[in-house]
Amino acid sequence: MTLLNETHDPKLKSWISSANDPSCDFPIQNLPFGIFSTADDPQPRVGVAIGEVIVDLAALEAAGLVSPPGAEQPVFAAATLNPFIALGRAAWRDTRLQLSRLLREGTATLRDNSALRERALVKQAVAALHLPVEIPGYTDFYSSKEHATNVGAMFRDPKNALLPNWLEIPIGYNGRASSVVVSGTPVRRPNGQIKLPDQERPAFGPCRRLDIELETGFIVGQGNALGEPIACEDAEQHIFGMVLLNDWSARDIQQWEYVPLGPFNAKTFATTISPWIVTLDALEPFRVAQPEQSPQPLPYLRHAGQHGFDIHLEVRMRPAQAARASTISRTNFKYMYWTMAQQLAHHTVSGCNTRVGDLMGSGTISGPTPDSYGSLLEITWGGKHPLTLDSGESRTFIEDGDELTLVGWCQGDGYRVGFGECRGEILPALPGAR
Amino acid sequence: MTLLNETHDPKLKSWISSANDPSCDFPIQNLPFGIFSTADDPQPRVGVAIGEVIVDLAALEAAGLVSPPGAEQPVFAAATLNPFIALGRAAWRDTRLQLSRLLREGTATLRDNSALRERALVKQAVAALHLPVEIPGYTDFYSSKEHATNVGAMFRDPKNALLPNWLEIPIGYNGRASSVVVSGTPVRRPNGQIKLPDQERPAFGPCRRLDIELETGFIVGQGNALGEPIACEDAEQHIFGMVLLNDWSARDIQQWEYVPLGPFNAKTFATTISPWIVTLDALEPFRVAQPEQSPQPLPYLRHAGQHGFDIHLEVRMRPAQAARASTISRTNFKYMYWTMAQQLAHHTVSGCNTRVGDLMGSGTISGPTPDSYGSLLEITWGGKHPLTLDSGESRTFIEDGDELTLVGWCQGDGYRVGFGECRGEILPALPGAR
Repeated sequence: MTLLNETHDPKLKSWISSANDPSCDFPIQNLPFGIFSTADDPQPRVGVAIGEVIVDLAALEAAGLVSPPGAEQPVFAAATLNPFIALGRAAWRDTRLQLSRLLREGTATLRDNSALRERALVKQAVAALHLPVEIPGYTDFYSSKEHATNVGAMFRDPKNALLPNWLEIPIGYNGRASSVVVSGTPVRRPNGQIKLPDQERPAFGPCRRLDIELETGFIVGQGNALGEPIACEDAEQHIFGMVLLNDWSARDIQQWEYVPLGPFNAKTFATTISPWIVTLDALEPFRVAQPEQSPQPLPYLRHAGQHGFDIHLEVRMRPAQAARASTISRTNFKYMYWTMAQQLAHHTVSGCNTRVGDLMGSGTISGPTPDSYGSLLEITWGGKHPLTLDSGESRTFIEDGDELTLVGWCQGDGYRVGFGECRGEILPALPGAR
Repeated sequence: MTLLNETHDPKLKSWISSANDPSCDFPIQNLPFGIFSTADDPQPRVGVAIGEVIVDLAALEAAGLVSPPGAEQPVFAAATLNPFIALGRAAWRDTRLQLSRLLREGTATLRDNSALRERALVKQAVAALHLPVEIPGYTDFYSSKEHATNVGAMFRDPKNALLPNWLEIPIGYNGRASSVVVSGTPVRRPNGQIKLPDQERPAFGPCRRLDIELETGFIVGQGNALGEPIACEDAEQHIFGMVLLNDWSARDIQQWEYVPLGPFNAKTFATTISPWIVTLDALEPFRVAQPEQSPQPLPYLRHAGQHGFDIHLEVRMRPAQAARASTISRTNFKYMYWTMAQQLAHHTVSGCNTRVGDLMGSGTISGPTPDSYGSLLEITWGGKHPLTLDSGESRTFIEDGDELTLVGWCQGDGYRVGFGECRGEILPALPGAR
């Protein structure tokens, strides 16, 4: 582990005692940013999760206890993180340090100011969480070699599962930003065109092969101008942080529509992200080497050092009536072949510009074994091997009422830097064949 | 021609005499909306083009001469059209009628108020035109049967050029909104991965097969909520207007990258649109039947009546040193197989939401004959049949310094409703293989 600065010290404790539980996602080493509101104050504003509470940064900023360098006006009394993120990396770091010092054991400023503490600490249980950023553009990559190989084997040729361009290009495509929703938002099963093998023409109706894709996403913190690519070596400096991302996918709609321009209605009905953005700074101690890349990438995709991150990931599925969820996949971000830096360098190498708040999905994260696959398509191998849940029910794809939850965390020494949940329940399709 | 209301009367003349020239793109029957600024007043604001001038709507609104119904605060002193468009169809129609009455021959209010006229009429020649809308999402369709057939014949199988899904689905994909630029913005030739047939690995370098795609785009004026599709019969009510659109394409980058998720870097470096949005109301007299669709589309894609528009389109190419441009293609929007209404109904049928200002490209518009094809790829048949320009130079694809211009207009009786220009000059690629 790398101890870049005092915010990473594993021994740090907070005077907010719930943050010191070793199984808590939000210890003082994490300090992820999000947008929340409460029944008392329905105005969405910036908060930081710690233990079981949210620290209201708008309140701290108004009280003069937190002030991001470079801010000419308040940035935390905002309904999105974009104004704060736009201040740049030095401001993110400095604010993180200010918060770490304010919330650590022994610092009395906020702890002993009961009036302010009352206003500024909100129980997560009573808060509503909102989409943390306004997302000008959403791009989804396809950077897990295991996932690309599995899909290629199923849909094309098992002997040549990986397409020739895959080892050269961090393949990606433009997603639909408008339908990115925050964890907890119910997702309606899409209707669409489905072409069954024994039918001459497609039929219109509810998706029958509704799936998840376990992904992470990163949020662009500093964009680039049109025509000015971001070099691979510099790319991480442009990344604010990461979220969990569920790229809901209608496999039957996708299979019929995707040639030759890629997936469209199969993906555009919803993409769910977790509400807390874990900063790249908080993830720094969990940096690991990415898998070896062979052939060596073209020069514009090269970067020295380690660019993987050791993030444990799980998928949980809970049928409507089940008392508890079953874990159906356990994998890790460190398996990803292409790094976030390579994705961003490739995205911009043509001159394409990026903007503050842009969301870039990793692509489905599959590990080497079936219990580490990141989609039901792979876990049940196209529906051939149904999954048995703890409740005794079996599943090939998602049924109405099922709730799917992604979780993720980095394991530190006595603490974990967690992402919280990325959750969605499936509602029945709209009725009528229209 | 349909005379829906008095704004369509072919006999209408304006007291702005340049608007009465039969070859002018902007007669009083058009009244397209855009965003402009001037050296004297660099604040971008809403204007309407008529004849050789721009009517400054911010100035007219401030003077109380134009007031869109439903506006609770000024909407024309804005840097984008989004606040105006968000007022909805009734407001667009009413504003158009107010302007038509104010600018027509015989109305003295503005004509004889020299102080206001001085402020509110700006010569187009001295104005800078900006992107007319903030574009939350950009989608590009692929709705010309001739284009899809030509591309399929070149890249896949001439005998089965059209893929099986094409006649059932208005195929579309998500584009990159960040790099949509307004006419006149220079476009830098992209660098990217290019895989030559005789090489084992791709090389990185400037695109060698840079192309245009002649398209139109429509601007969503009224969006839909997530999970609430727009019915095909209602879809035109959601459209504010149309622009010309050049979907610049790097064919060599595209060919290597596009399998299996579609075009990405080959398209994301720039998309140019014309600055004036011609309202669907202004296009109403030019409504024609779309081509016959066989097989009959699925019910969710059906709409009674005529949904094509008779829009003449041309592509002009001017090499750096040439005195004048050569027209290299003449086609018409009426050839489009899938209608804008069908595109929007399909886009949202999965539940995907759309937003005010969303841009939807038609896809390359090719007619039935080689001189009506909408891309150099088709015109030169993959570079096999070079084109000879009026200057004597020959071209397969675009060279550095070439200027490409799309123009379009509807021909009325003694007037034309034009789109102005959609123009871009190609700059050399950034140096260095990085």
